[in-house]
Amino acid sequence: MTAWSRRHVLSTEDWTREEIERVLDQTEPMLEVLGRPIRRTPALRGRTVVLFFAEASTRTRMSFELAAKALSADTSIITASGSSIEKGETLLDTVRTLQALGAEILVMRSAASGAPYFVAERVTSAVINAGDGWHAHPTQGLLDAFTLRRALGDLAGKRIVIVGDVLHSRVARSDIHTLVPLGATVTLSGPPTLIPAAWRCGQLPPGVSHEEEVDRALDAADAVIALRLQRERQESGLLPSLREYALEWGITEERVARMRPGAPVLHPGPMNEGVEIDAAVAHGSRSLIEQQVTNGVAVRMALLLLLAGTPVAA
Amino acid sequence: MTAWSRRHVLSTEDWTREEIERVLDQTEPMLEVLGRPIRRTPALRGRTVVLFFAEASTRTRMSFELAAKALSADTSIITASGSSIEKGETLLDTVRTLQALGAEILVMRSAASGAPYFVAERVTSAVINAGDGWHAHPTQGLLDAFTLRRALGDLAGKRIVIVGDVLHSRVARSDIHTLVPLGATVTLSGPPTLIPAAWRCGQLPPGVSHEEEVDRALDAADAVIALRLQRERQESGLLPSLREYALEWGITEERVARMRPGAPVLHPGPMNEGVEIDAAVAHGSRSLIEQQVTNGVAVRMALLLLLAGTPVAA
Amino acid sequence: MTAWSRRHVLSTEDWTREEIERVLDQTEPMLEVLGRPIRRTPALRGRTVVLFFAEASTRTRMSFELAAKALSADTSIITASGSSIEKGETLLDTVRTLQALGAEILVMRSAASGAPYFVAERVTSAVINAGDGWHAHPTQGLLDAFTLRRALGDLAGKRIVIVGDVLHSRVARSDIHTLVPLGATVTLSGPPTLIPAAWRCGQLPPGVSHEEEVDRALDAADAVIALRLQRERQESGLLPSLREYALEWGITEERVARMRPGAPVLHPGPMNEGVEIDAAVAHGSRSLIEQQVTNGVAVRMALLLLLAGTPVAA
Repeated sequence: MTAWSRRHVLSTEDWTREEIERVLDQTEPMLEVLGRPIRRTPALRGRTVVLFFAEASTRTRMSFELAAKALSADTSIITASGSSIEKGETLLDTVRTLQALGAEILVMRSAASGAPYFVAERVTSAVINAGDGWHAHPTQGLLDAFTLRRALGDLAGKRIVIVGDVLHSRVARSDIHTLVPLGATVTLSGPPTLIPAAWRCGQLPPGVSHEEEVDRALDAADAVIALRLQRERQESGLLPSLREYALEWGITEERVARMRPGAPVLHPGPMNEGVEIDAAVAHGSRSLIEQQVTNGVAVRMALLLLLAGTPVAA
Repeated sequence: MTAWSRRHVLSTEDWTREEIERVLDQTEPMLEVLGRPIRRTPALRGRTVVLFFAEASTRTRMSFELAAKALSADTSIITASGSSIEKGETLLDTVRTLQALGAEILVMRSAASGAPYFVAERVTSAVINAGDGWHAHPTQGLLDAFTLRRALGDLAGKRIVIVGDVLHSRVARSDIHTLVPLGATVTLSGPPTLIPAAWRCGQLPPGVSHEEEVDRALDAADAVIALRLQRERQESGLLPSLREYALEWGITEERVARMRPGAPVLHPGPMNEGVEIDAAVAHGSRSLIEQQVTNGVAVRMALLLLLAGTPVAA
Repeated sequence: MTAWSRRHVLSTEDWTREEIERVLDQTEPMLEVLGRPIRRTPALRGRTVVLFFAEASTRTRMSFELAAKALSADTSIITASGSSIEKGETLLDTVRTLQALGAEILVMRSAASGAPYFVAERVTSAVINAGDGWHAHPTQGLLDAFTLRRALGDLAGKRIVIVGDVLHSRVARSDIHTLVPLGATVTLSGPPTLIPAAWRCGQLPPGVSHEEEVDRALDAADAVIALRLQRERQESGLLPSLREYALEWGITEERVARMRPGAPVLHPGPMNEGVEIDAAVAHGSRSLIEQQVTNGVAVRMALLLLLAGTPVAA
């Protein structure tokens, strides 16, 4: 196996294929641990993981928390409310304190794009970006790649469609940054107001294409990832109505049928059922949405182990 | 011992005497664990218990948390604020996520009556209802039964009085559903506006009677449970004043003296001292209120063990 | 070593030199534990520490939490929001419940001066004051003494300057109560509106002096502790402006140069950089501010061990 040299997980934008595969390979034995009656290995006993969530989140916070606990690490959670951030303490002062308190690995979610980079340059703790503004959500990208690799095998030559509000989506960006290095191509589709202008004009990153018609995008695709639609987009005039969005861009059973036989459906959650995805699809046989959640715990275990310098078979 | 077959603890309304006794019998060794210098057994090591509290609660949340920790389980807590529920995620989406994250046992408190039933039908996790609206609070019913059995011995033929806002009380309902199958009778007393109309008219469940005069209800009773009075009841016109309530229905030393010698006083907490219960009674020698809290941890340990399929002697 | 007889840590105002030194001596092996790859001893396994924080705090809450976890204790956290305090439960009812739930050690922060005394008289749990209003913050006093002893050796005859809003500072009070018994003298300096009137008039406790000119206070001093300036002080008219405060009282490199060579700078955090302390000083070679945070975890471990009755070498 390749040696691991990253100190932080801030974005997978500059990761090599080998680094991404190293994480996915390390995830397999972690998934096996989670399937045991006693879901626990002592790998990180006595090590401290701090979860610093300045934005509301159930699934990502719990996923990291349960990943750390399954590795026997000590965890401590800080949310924006109830913290000294309310006293006007700066972000940097807070994270320096967390480091001095013994945080070896700092998992942080923040509304400000780039915040984890700013922090990582200034602390000795390892930093994992659990979502920063519109910028990146690298552990989501890795868990989506892991989920797709399990479903489709080698991703080389596979075509994955991402549908929805690409403009504001850190998930879309992070999916591109993990899927393309693994050899997949990504087709983006969504309302013109919600696709970055440069991408609509054809200035696309390698391996990525844009297709205005969602039905055409889905034809013979290998998988689709539906993005969450923020209801605020309608209020800000970027969308006519949720009903119209559902009609034009919602992932329905008819649209799923356009893909290759058995092609799976993913969604990062939380879902607006009936808007970006139909309930029948979300809970149907093609949905990998619950597996994504379970795989997310395993991917985060793998990353914690790699950053702690103690990757183990299980 | 009877085998245990329940997958969930939603209400004890349909439980048999044997099931209730099975929980109480399992609680005894748990109380013994809590009395040790090291309050811990490894019974649920590596198992995951998620506490999902959509309503504020100190004592019930902490009671479950400490019960799970005393059994060495991993715990994760979700409260309504700071969770994706704020993002408009549906209850069902949240709990499916919790299940996919690995929640084997899901302890949930919710403002909506019936929410735990809705969830239990749709997830594979075991669900424990930690209070749903006005409907039920089964672990409170079980801990009250355990506390009374310890104080009075066999409950057959014992008469327990419940005083106060029966109409809005999930505690009253759950107490009836555990005490009556154990052979006790229950006498309800309280302001007519706070007793269900059908019950005031004599359409009472088996084993339950209604007595408008609290003094008469208490005469020769074996125990009394004072219910918490929600101050909102006064604002909504159901009560003249708190002072009048205290005079008419408050559990005072004089009223306690009407019961059998040594008959104990219970309260589910948090108390409004000087309203539904006098401070002298709340902290007097007849009060079992602090024992209820301690017994609550032990009862919840017993239920977690039974649902996890690993009941042990200790 | 001296035997330990305190049941609570409410203030160090009446502590003897021997008691203070007992804590500092116990802190040394705890710091050694925190320096290990696996930061953990089993000393408090199965013991329950409850953190009851009715005021926002990141560093103190996390410091106690990580201290308890490093000793393998079970922890449970209660904050004012999300607790039954919202239901109008009294402080006393809450802490009696925490005791009945099994809280052997209760760490509490409260806005009301004296609240931990009130509680300590009424529960059997050991109580640690983690800050009560303007009154005391004894664990901060102990960690500052520990940090200074490590930097300066024996504190006898050393002169420590405390600069800033002494009037509202529980840190200043608790520092005086630990430093003076160890033989140090303390010089206070700050805006006249923010020094207690009696102290400005010369009615000072033994070992404490007042010096209006901060530059003169710092001349040949052995160390300085800059206090956090609450921005509310300006709004309430006690201060002309933050800029003026920074000019007149801020700890700059020029002011640091007035002290003895190598004399260190402390701050309890969170800092207002550019107000009470310059960024260059805060993060410079003389700053012990991050060490204070790390030492804080070790001091709290020592106190938990002493109160639990199980002081160990490590």
